[in-house]
Amino acid sequence: MQKNIEKIRTLFESLPYIRKFFNKTVVIKYGGHAMIDDSLKKSFARDIVLMKYVGINPVIVHGGGPQIGGLLARLGKESRFVKVIRVTDNETMDVVEMVLVGKINKEIVGLINHFGGKAVGLGGKDGGLIKARRLKIKGEEMGYVGDVEAIDPGVLAVLEESDFIPVIAPVGGDEEGTSFNINADTVAGKIAAALNAEKLILLTDVAGVLDKDKKLISSLTLSEARALITKKIAVGGMIPKLQCCMEAVVSGVKRAHIIDGRVEHAVLLEVFTDAGVGTAIGLKK
Amino acid sequence: MQKNIEKIRTLFESLPYIRKFFNKTVVIKYGGHAMIDDSLKKSFARDIVLMKYVGINPVIVHGGGPQIGGLLARLGKESRFVKVIRVTDNETMDVVEMVLVGKINKEIVGLINHFGGKAVGLGGKDGGLIKARRLKIKGEEMGYVGDVEAIDPGVLAVLEESDFIPVIAPVGGDEEGTSFNINADTVAGKIAAALNAEKLILLTDVAGVLDKDKKLISSLTLSEARALITKKIAVGGMIPKLQCCMEAVVSGVKRAHIIDGRVEHAVLLEVFTDAGVGTAIGLKK
Amino acid sequence: MQKNIEKIRTLFESLPYIRKFFNKTVVIKYGGHAMIDDSLKKSFARDIVLMKYVGINPVIVHGGGPQIGGLLARLGKESRFVKVIRVTDNETMDVVEMVLVGKINKEIVGLINHFGGKAVGLGGKDGGLIKARRLKIKGEEMGYVGDVEAIDPGVLAVLEESDFIPVIAPVGGDEEGTSFNINADTVAGKIAAALNAEKLILLTDVAGVLDKDKKLISSLTLSEARALITKKIAVGGMIPKLQCCMEAVVSGVKRAHIIDGRVEHAVLLEVFTDAGVGTAIGLKK
Amino acid sequence: MQKNIEKIRTLFESLPYIRKFFNKTVVIKYGGHAMIDDSLKKSFARDIVLMKYVGINPVIVHGGGPQIGGLLARLGKESRFVKVIRVTDNETMDVVEMVLVGKINKEIVGLINHFGGKAVGLGGKDGGLIKARRLKIKGEEMGYVGDVEAIDPGVLAVLEESDFIPVIAPVGGDEEGTSFNINADTVAGKIAAALNAEKLILLTDVAGVLDKDKKLISSLTLSEARALITKKIAVGGMIPKLQCCMEAVVSGVKRAHIIDGRVEHAVLLEVFTDAGVGTAIGLKK
Amino acid sequence: MQKNIEKIRTLFESLPYIRKFFNKTVVIKYGGHAMIDDSLKKSFARDIVLMKYVGINPVIVHGGGPQIGGLLARLGKESRFVKVIRVTDNETMDVVEMVLVGKINKEIVGLINHFGGKAVGLGGKDGGLIKARRLKIKGEEMGYVGDVEAIDPGVLAVLEESDFIPVIAPVGGDEEGTSFNINADTVAGKIAAALNAEKLILLTDVAGVLDKDKKLISSLTLSEARALITKKIAVGGMIPKLQCCMEAVVSGVKRAHIIDGRVEHAVLLEVFTDAGVGTAIGLKK
Amino acid sequence: MQKNIEKIRTLFESLPYIRKFFNKTVVIKYGGHAMIDDSLKKSFARDIVLMKYVGINPVIVHGGGPQIGGLLARLGKESRFVKVIRVTDNETMDVVEMVLVGKINKEIVGLINHFGGKAVGLGGKDGGLIKARRLKIKGEEMGYVGDVEAIDPGVLAVLEESDFIPVIAPVGGDEEGTSFNINADTVAGKIAAALNAEKLILLTDVAGVLDKDKKLISSLTLSEARALITKKIAVGGMIPKLQCCMEAVVSGVKRAHIIDGRVEHAVLLEVFTDAGVGTAIGLKK
Repeated sequence: MQKNIEKIRTLFESLPYIRKFFNKTVVIKYGGHAMIDDSLKKSFARDIVLMKYVGINPVIVHGGGPQIGGLLARLGKESRFVKVIRVTDNETMDVVEMVLVGKINKEIVGLINHFGGKAVGLGGKDGGLIKARRLKIKGEEMGYVGDVEAIDPGVLAVLEESDFIPVIAPVGGDEEGTSFNINADTVAGKIAAALNAEKLILLTDVAGVLDKDKKLISSLTLSEARALITKKIAVGGMIPKLQCCMEAVVSGVKRAHIIDGRVEHAVLLEVFTDAGVGTAIGLKK
Repeated sequence: MQKNIEKIRTLFESLPYIRKFFNKTVVIKYGGHAMIDDSLKKSFARDIVLMKYVGINPVIVHGGGPQIGGLLARLGKESRFVKVIRVTDNETMDVVEMVLVGKINKEIVGLINHFGGKAVGLGGKDGGLIKARRLKIKGEEMGYVGDVEAIDPGVLAVLEESDFIPVIAPVGGDEEGTSFNINADTVAGKIAAALNAEKLILLTDVAGVLDKDKKLISSLTLSEARALITKKIAVGGMIPKLQCCMEAVVSGVKRAHIIDGRVEHAVLLEVFTDAGVGTAIGLKK
Repeated sequence: MQKNIEKIRTLFESLPYIRKFFNKTVVIKYGGHAMIDDSLKKSFARDIVLMKYVGINPVIVHGGGPQIGGLLARLGKESRFVKVIRVTDNETMDVVEMVLVGKINKEIVGLINHFGGKAVGLGGKDGGLIKARRLKIKGEEMGYVGDVEAIDPGVLAVLEESDFIPVIAPVGGDEEGTSFNINADTVAGKIAAALNAEKLILLTDVAGVLDKDKKLISSLTLSEARALITKKIAVGGMIPKLQCCMEAVVSGVKRAHIIDGRVEHAVLLEVFTDAGVGTAIGLKK
Repeated sequence: MQKNIEKIRTLFESLPYIRKFFNKTVVIKYGGHAMIDDSLKKSFARDIVLMKYVGINPVIVHGGGPQIGGLLARLGKESRFVKVIRVTDNETMDVVEMVLVGKINKEIVGLINHFGGKAVGLGGKDGGLIKARRLKIKGEEMGYVGDVEAIDPGVLAVLEESDFIPVIAPVGGDEEGTSFNINADTVAGKIAAALNAEKLILLTDVAGVLDKDKKLISSLTLSEARALITKKIAVGGMIPKLQCCMEAVVSGVKRAHIIDGRVEHAVLLEVFTDAGVGTAIGLKK
Repeated sequence: MQKNIEKIRTLFESLPYIRKFFNKTVVIKYGGHAMIDDSLKKSFARDIVLMKYVGINPVIVHGGGPQIGGLLARLGKESRFVKVIRVTDNETMDVVEMVLVGKINKEIVGLINHFGGKAVGLGGKDGGLIKARRLKIKGEEMGYVGDVEAIDPGVLAVLEESDFIPVIAPVGGDEEGTSFNINADTVAGKIAAALNAEKLILLTDVAGVLDKDKKLISSLTLSEARALITKKIAVGGMIPKLQCCMEAVVSGVKRAHIIDGRVEHAVLLEVFTDAGVGTAIGLKK
Repeated sequence: MQKNIEKIRTLFESLPYIRKFFNKTVVIKYGGHAMIDDSLKKSFARDIVLMKYVGINPVIVHGGGPQIGGLLARLGKESRFVKVIRVTDNETMDVVEMVLVGKINKEIVGLINHFGGKAVGLGGKDGGLIKARRLKIKGEEMGYVGDVEAIDPGVLAVLEESDFIPVIAPVGGDEEGTSFNINADTVAGKIAAALNAEKLILLTDVAGVLDKDKKLISSLTLSEARALITKKIAVGGMIPKLQCCMEAVVSGVKRAHIIDGRVEHAVLLEVFTDAGVGTAIGLKK
């Protein structure tokens, strides 16, 4: 009995957070380790279902994974990379879309439903959700690498109203129906902005944003974030993630987070504890 | 961090219960120790708020308390009791209604709102919720002691739709607007039946229903419950409580519970753990 | 037959008023003689029911009555008054709330329902309707005498939509759930403003506002009302009533009325005749 | 003042009737003297507006009037009658429809709107309201005299929901769009049945149904009504009116009335007094 | 089979127009030859039904026809004309209203319903749709010739929501319920403006607006239209039609059209082909 | 102009069909040649968009195509077939799901959107649409070949209400989220039954059902269809298609069709002409 009472007490520690985020939208970029490790995958799916049941509206945007490389390798396709972006020819795009939309997306949908949610997977062409255009990188021919031209959140609104959980693959289409591979962080940021989300959460494989002494920074204002980039304290892959968060905050998202997806229940820890995990970017600390 | 992860894990243990009772109505008779002890009062109010936030619809029916006796004593009124029921003359009825509706009810409303809920207190006359008639006890003149003639759940439906939590004092009115003091268990049972509630929970000051060896019985079918009464194993105040639960189950309430309100978070323990607390009465075990 | 035709003709004289106030909200401060005299009580309840049936939305705020003093006296509590306001200690506040919410409010609800309406009684804590703060009077410790900090009309909207008639006791709560006794005129004025009411009607025990020759003034602009106060023509209890009306008109209420509640059907006479009764305050005459 | 109080008192005598018929539908066949006399016309229009404002849903079916004969005469058309029904050739039908739909109907609409209602005039073809078929009278060629084949009350429901008052001319159309002149009593009865109306009221130019001593019968059961016909106490034009009422009652209309339209405010007298006017036909007295 | 495939191909040529006008309102002034010729009448009714089925909301305003003159003639009434407008005395107005509302309107309603639509005919008094005032022509007494004072589109909105097709006769009423004969082009233009229509289409008996070489002008900007009038290229009856269109465009109607109603399916040709028929007036070509 | 009038005339020939199928659901199994040939693909997408715009609700279930075999071949996987069904091991299932959901489905969605529709692609796991179970074939181990256990049409209803066009890949999931490859005809039939569809249309690469003289049978009752199977006139792949149609009709689908997808606009020809194409199965001819 005593153990049960302890449980209930713990339950109450979440109540203030449940109240705070009741009926709010949280867009989560799901990727990295959390999307590969079997135990983390399950824990993520359960996090999402729990959020939905306590009245929060999660929207998931997932990235690609080793499966894309795996299938390309088996097919004997080699990829060239420009600034870590895979140059995507026609055949590669086919593989990317098949793996993202036909495999990873449906695995996530299946897991969420298995744990009691009602997920619906979407590619960017579904309902015209993500209108894409070719990404221009000076002097480079990137193929079917795209950027977000516009988000039409209509289909998301319809699904959320009926308590479905949207799970989105980062593949957009242009007017002709051509598919483009888009960076998932970018898609998540744009969708968070279009939905006026309360939070944008980027799941990464690092602890968060580090200061020059390699210590975790728990929160940043926009100008502090900008300074980190100018002073070259933030480097490498962290720069586009920071920029994505800053842009989302400027577009009206309340708070953007770069968190450590390797930690079990990272998303819930972020939403349901004061300490949170990783780094938060907002207009105010 | 590890502590926070433990918390989140605990949170998940409630998920199956949250899913099970999502959008269901739970009618709780609130009384006894749980309505007197300061710490239990707060814990009860928080239980209710948490239930509402995770999608369950609680409806509270409260009993009277020592305050009725206290005020009567201060006014020099003495009461006669017939089978533990207070014979209620006109002046006593005034005191009963003032204390129930004007003091206890509003304290509960105030506490629930303080913890983040939106409670609305109702007497049985409000919206014609409880239509009362004089309770007949053979050979006795009971005064303004009443019984439930009919429940009009209209006002409850309207409040629930807008996420208000109804808190009901067990005072009914007849066609002429005369007030009657009604047993709170009876009111709770009738309201649970009228709302087709998932659960009726009676908070008491005992562990639950005991067998002849004074050991707690955790669940009873209707016929088992009936046997307890016939065989005189259930005695005293437990008999009307058992009858109230049995009647509710017969009228369509899924499960009725007699639980120990002296235990902190008794309501949540009942709803959110398999073991539960106290005794459950249902069509099946 | 001829008598019946006369009746129908009379009915028609109300039609222009019914049309004018169709679907409009009228907030009525109910108190004084009209709340004590048995025949006036019934006639008031019937006035309210009739208004509702012809499409007007009445909202009632009632005051206290001799019953508060009566119960205090029986309990041997004596009250100190500062500027006619009862200094309210903890125990007195209990009595005030019990009598207002548990007795007077439910009597009104019962009478209205008896005559065919569907009234729901509310204290200011219900649904967070009246958020109170301590009333400051320089140099005085008034105890639990409060002022309106904010009105949350949500619960009123929900009840009106389903054709319930709200009856409000002038007791507010602060964040901690502490109860405060608030002047009923003030509550009525603030609620009228929050609801954008068509009319605020204060039932009093005088004929209305009198000019310096003690003759009834039938209508006043805001500046005329102000002049009456500056020139000390309005004195005593009339001043706060005038100020309450003026504030309501400034906050958007179309017309505020100080009328004579000792006249049978005073409210309907005000609403359904051109002459009206008492004094009207508006932006224009 | 006293006079005004008297008025208000009178107002209250209607309250029980207002409550009784709140939100109910009353179908009124409007015709005869009440549709010719200028003062009765106005009083009828005002009756309808008042009914609507106190929450009753009136639906009006009007008959023809001397204007049809007048126009036919001016055009030099003579009519043959079979059992008081005008044999209607093509050209006559044109005149009938023009006068009913284009003149009488719009006059009624105009008057009701003038007194503050929102009437919408309809012929039977509008929205497919009245599907007509040729009336067969053995051995006679009646031309464009029709009977009701079916009522499609869709357009009435849509108008009532938005508080419009439907005013219906008794002209139906068949599948080919051919117009038929139908008896207005018949149309009123069929529409009352299709709407499950509370009341069907036939305005006539007689006091009501008379017994063999020429005294007004105030109420009749179905079998009593039948007896009047069999025993030939009811004669002439009264027989089809009685039959129309009986059929309506059998089809579910609560009560059907044959009343004296020459009395001012006859409709309101029927609805708002116990005595009523004329004869009521119902399942019970 | 090949023939059927050809048909389907043709069907596709309409798809872009169906998409363009989906859920848009098109107000059509119906008159002239198209309202007299039997074959054109049917083809018009079918045009309207088809438009409705493919998701366009047509609203029809019809004019008068030779039937007015015919009936006046038969009644021996002679009319005086001022600038082609019939001076309308009381008796003439009766004839005008009877023919417009009671004959022409219902014929159109009947035809549309015959072809599968659900039309509802309205005069301007119905639901207070067209508030009229006396038309002033300097130095002339025009009688019951009116102008549009205001449009209350409430009844149209209610009908459209339930997929009824409104058919409107150009007869308005003033506050007293007096009827006025109004030019149908004017009514159509005002209604198009009040409904924020996508298109106003005036069916005429000419090819459209002609240039000084008598060649059809297919589209006009507002300033070009104005120039045509100033330079006296547009003359006679075309001037008020042009002005009506220009006023509609200025009031927010997207495009106004003067088209040749003598051509079968003129309305559909205008809506469903790029070439259109007749002359379009818009802010841009 | 004459050509345009011809076009409009053609348009009208579809009106009776548009009326007949207004607001009805048509489930189409899309596959075979029509899903490979570039010109047929476009024509199919346009057919679907047109149907939607004229008020019909199409739901598409697509099959697989040569792309599955192609990718398996490139990966060096060989498949064993049992009664033309591909035995599906784990790795093969991955390829099947990727190609069906990630490639073919999104191509169809892209094409429909390109032509102006709003399609949303779904796998059977999305929203729990298709609950699958392992298909049992006696004596054979088929791997991840599944059968439909249940359809949950919730997500389809939500999408249709907002005018999205569902495009469904025939991959179901069981409770554990395991994917199963299901025959597309079967899925289409079950979905048609679950939606109470007006029509089920199976697009094939044959003319329809042939009689013993190899002549096309244009319509079949259930018993005639049964006879074709018993008498072995229907053979090979036609048998399961016939059974699928018969089962759908028994489950409440009005009419099921086996049509020739090699014909351009086959779907529209079926829906919009009397002759139709291929073979119809219904309760009556």
